[in-house]
Amino acid sequence: MNYRKLGEEGIRELQQIVGRDYVFTDASTLTLYSRDETEDLSFLPEAVVKPADAGQIAAILSWCNARRVPVTPRGAGTSLSGSALPIHGGLVLSLERLNRILKIDERNLQATVESGVITQVLMDAVAERGLLYPIDPASKGSCFIGGNIAHGSGGPRVVKYGTIRDYILNLEVVLPSGEIIQTGANTLKNASGYSLTQLMIGSEGTLGIVTKAVLKLIPRASHSVVLFASFPTNEDACQAVSAIFRAGLTPSALEFMEREGVEWVMEHDAVDFNLKPGVEAYLLIEVDGRDRDHLFVDCEKIAGVLEQHGCDEVLVAESAAEKEAFWKIRHTLPHSVKANSIYKEEDTVVPRAELPALIKGIKEIGTRYGFQSVCYGHAGDGNLHVNIIKGSMSEEDWKHKLRDGIRELFQLTVRLGGTISGEHGIGYVQREFLDVIYSPPHLQLFRAIKQAFDPNHILNPGKILA
Amino acid sequence: MNYRKLGEEGIRELQQIVGRDYVFTDASTLTLYSRDETEDLSFLPEAVVKPADAGQIAAILSWCNARRVPVTPRGAGTSLSGSALPIHGGLVLSLERLNRILKIDERNLQATVESGVITQVLMDAVAERGLLYPIDPASKGSCFIGGNIAHGSGGPRVVKYGTIRDYILNLEVVLPSGEIIQTGANTLKNASGYSLTQLMIGSEGTLGIVTKAVLKLIPRASHSVVLFASFPTNEDACQAVSAIFRAGLTPSALEFMEREGVEWVMEHDAVDFNLKPGVEAYLLIEVDGRDRDHLFVDCEKIAGVLEQHGCDEVLVAESAAEKEAFWKIRHTLPHSVKANSIYKEEDTVVPRAELPALIKGIKEIGTRYGFQSVCYGHAGDGNLHVNIIKGSMSEEDWKHKLRDGIRELFQLTVRLGGTISGEHGIGYVQREFLDVIYSPPHLQLFRAIKQAFDPNHILNPGKILA
Repeated sequence: MNYRKLGEEGIRELQQIVGRDYVFTDASTLTLYSRDETEDLSFLPEAVVKPADAGQIAAILSWCNARRVPVTPRGAGTSLSGSALPIHGGLVLSLERLNRILKIDERNLQATVESGVITQVLMDAVAERGLLYPIDPASKGSCFIGGNIAHGSGGPRVVKYGTIRDYILNLEVVLPSGEIIQTGANTLKNASGYSLTQLMIGSEGTLGIVTKAVLKLIPRASHSVVLFASFPTNEDACQAVSAIFRAGLTPSALEFMEREGVEWVMEHDAVDFNLKPGVEAYLLIEVDGRDRDHLFVDCEKIAGVLEQHGCDEVLVAESAAEKEAFWKIRHTLPHSVKANSIYKEEDTVVPRAELPALIKGIKEIGTRYGFQSVCYGHAGDGNLHVNIIKGSMSEEDWKHKLRDGIRELFQLTVRLGGTISGEHGIGYVQREFLDVIYSPPHLQLFRAIKQAFDPNHILNPGKILA
Repeated sequence: MNYRKLGEEGIRELQQIVGRDYVFTDASTLTLYSRDETEDLSFLPEAVVKPADAGQIAAILSWCNARRVPVTPRGAGTSLSGSALPIHGGLVLSLERLNRILKIDERNLQATVESGVITQVLMDAVAERGLLYPIDPASKGSCFIGGNIAHGSGGPRVVKYGTIRDYILNLEVVLPSGEIIQTGANTLKNASGYSLTQLMIGSEGTLGIVTKAVLKLIPRASHSVVLFASFPTNEDACQAVSAIFRAGLTPSALEFMEREGVEWVMEHDAVDFNLKPGVEAYLLIEVDGRDRDHLFVDCEKIAGVLEQHGCDEVLVAESAAEKEAFWKIRHTLPHSVKANSIYKEEDTVVPRAELPALIKGIKEIGTRYGFQSVCYGHAGDGNLHVNIIKGSMSEEDWKHKLRDGIRELFQLTVRLGGTISGEHGIGYVQREFLDVIYSPPHLQLFRAIKQAFDPNHILNPGKILA
């Protein structure tokens, strides 16, 4: 694809559309928007623009589309797959000014928000009214709802409450042509033609720019209990996971952590925890509901299942402070790993009963390729974040040989009925592995869908598809 | 689109692919497959073919695609939108021989089924293992899983358990080119490119033919209670619906019925029920869960909400026979309406708190156009089936003027934030109203998506799009 530069004419046009104060070409802004949270990748855009609304975005896209200037939409820049990187230069279009909660409709249990609303801000606003929006990725304190939609984001509560796909009722989307559409209706069900709502979810800003979303809300559980369980082996812990569900129990979170990850949390973030010898893995299990007694009955049953799978010890937390202390270990883990070593994070997902085979396979592949790994994640969903640690690997091996190891890892997930990303997306860094999961006719459909929405390939070019 | 006939050469080719026993050209078979359950519409196909597997379907599609012979895929033929009608002739491709449950995976709480499995057969098979597949449209005793997927089908339990979109993990699909793809992975979450799984759901057999599905299963509730509540007005009943959810309660079914519908059930199907004077509407409310005492606490709370909204009387059913008696009224209703008069059924859906405005508007439009209506449906989802009764309307008005009334009805649903079909689909009979909900650029995307999958337009032509 031959892209054109924005140039001085483009800058002037943008200034006319959004006003001079919202077009940035200074080095420090360009540098800031040249990265997201993916490894150490960086690509300088020509300009950063911060439109105020869908109308301005439509005008920008229409202008860029006519001239083949690439546009990289950007939420909060928390992507772990490089999907906010302006790899072909051009324009970064930030959604940070579309940050209004437009309506919390208590009669219909729905919220209407602009796409630049921070996830936690929405969660807090609905919690005040006794309601829950349960999709809370680890970056919830900074990430935007729009970015969550674009990536099909998850988080720990998917296991009980479902994915973001179950909570998005309707979207306002600006197409590359500059046209604005509503993808659906504000209804809990809709059987009226192809679901553009669902097609937009997980499309990583390559088909259109989401400017507004209508979300489903649900009643908020009044009580929760957290269990923190230790196991002699990773595989024992993973086997316990599927046994819990088979026993008819559905926790509101079921997180797995390898011992080494917890050690790093203690070292790097001064978290106090009595790490016992002989423990290889932990499960953090949260149950929630409206009845405290009922929850403790469930906890008893879960503890029984855990014991049957070799669990050494189950700690129980009910006060907010105790629960927070356990969650802090899990929430700090990604940061501690990052602080400890150069790393690469993979977002494997398999049917949950295949977790023991996955984790065994990861370690075997690591042994063959000479890398260490620290695994943690949403075990209840079969979603394991594999942190590959550079450690003592040579620069050469890290840059070239590792790629083959990752390919093997992804081939393993496919053999187990899984895929290469559960919630982080494909973006820029995983696109080279797409052939592991999809056949040529499948990829041809991806290209045809892209072509249908964005015939000039101006929107987030080089993401998902090369 | 210029379609070609199958002709004698085509018949011979089909016989070679599936064997002589599974190609039908006799008048009685052609007549049988010329209809589905949509009004009195009928279109004769040239032949009916009953392939055994995806491989045979691939060979058929490949042959027809090369020659532009139209193919109408057919599940059990229970469509209410005419989506199984072979309106351009050609071939009806029946999926009735793909009727095997391939696997019930208790470790992962998943089932793998061929698309011709009857919904009830799957539900019973998983129930035997204490599991639930909760998507049960009214036609569950005969409809196929594949048809449910193609139409985004619903049923009464969507209100608690979510739509079919939340239960389909992965699909095997035969494309018009004859290529076979897996749309996703057997995982609870997937952020690996455009979701062809979700795009196939609700695409009504116009993009590809689903041959296999991997479904999510959940633990089965052990207890349920049914409440049957009567109200002096339709609007009181509808207002109670959203109040129940706002009180933090989530029934497993919440069905609305107009008095007249219940009267017809009693007349036509000899159902015994003490219909009291002064009652205009009924709600059937089911709650389910794992704890009987807990359920009765919820029932008390629901009864409290109902009383606040003018409820006259709440009948409670806990024994299987009592519950079945109430459900029978609801299940028999569509059939009783059909037996009573020539009718047309619309599948309106709005945000549930807008139900009172919807039902008021339906009656007003009816008064202006001279039609009566009987409404019932999944009020918990805001999904109201509007049965328009021909009654004393003239043949001329029924055929021509009514169309404008339906258009007004759909315009009303859109003004209320809703859409024209909640679970029946667009098919053949609603396609003329698509412009009420979608703008020209939106419809252009629909056409481009169709083009991407089916460039020769051989697959279920004339459905969704004209």
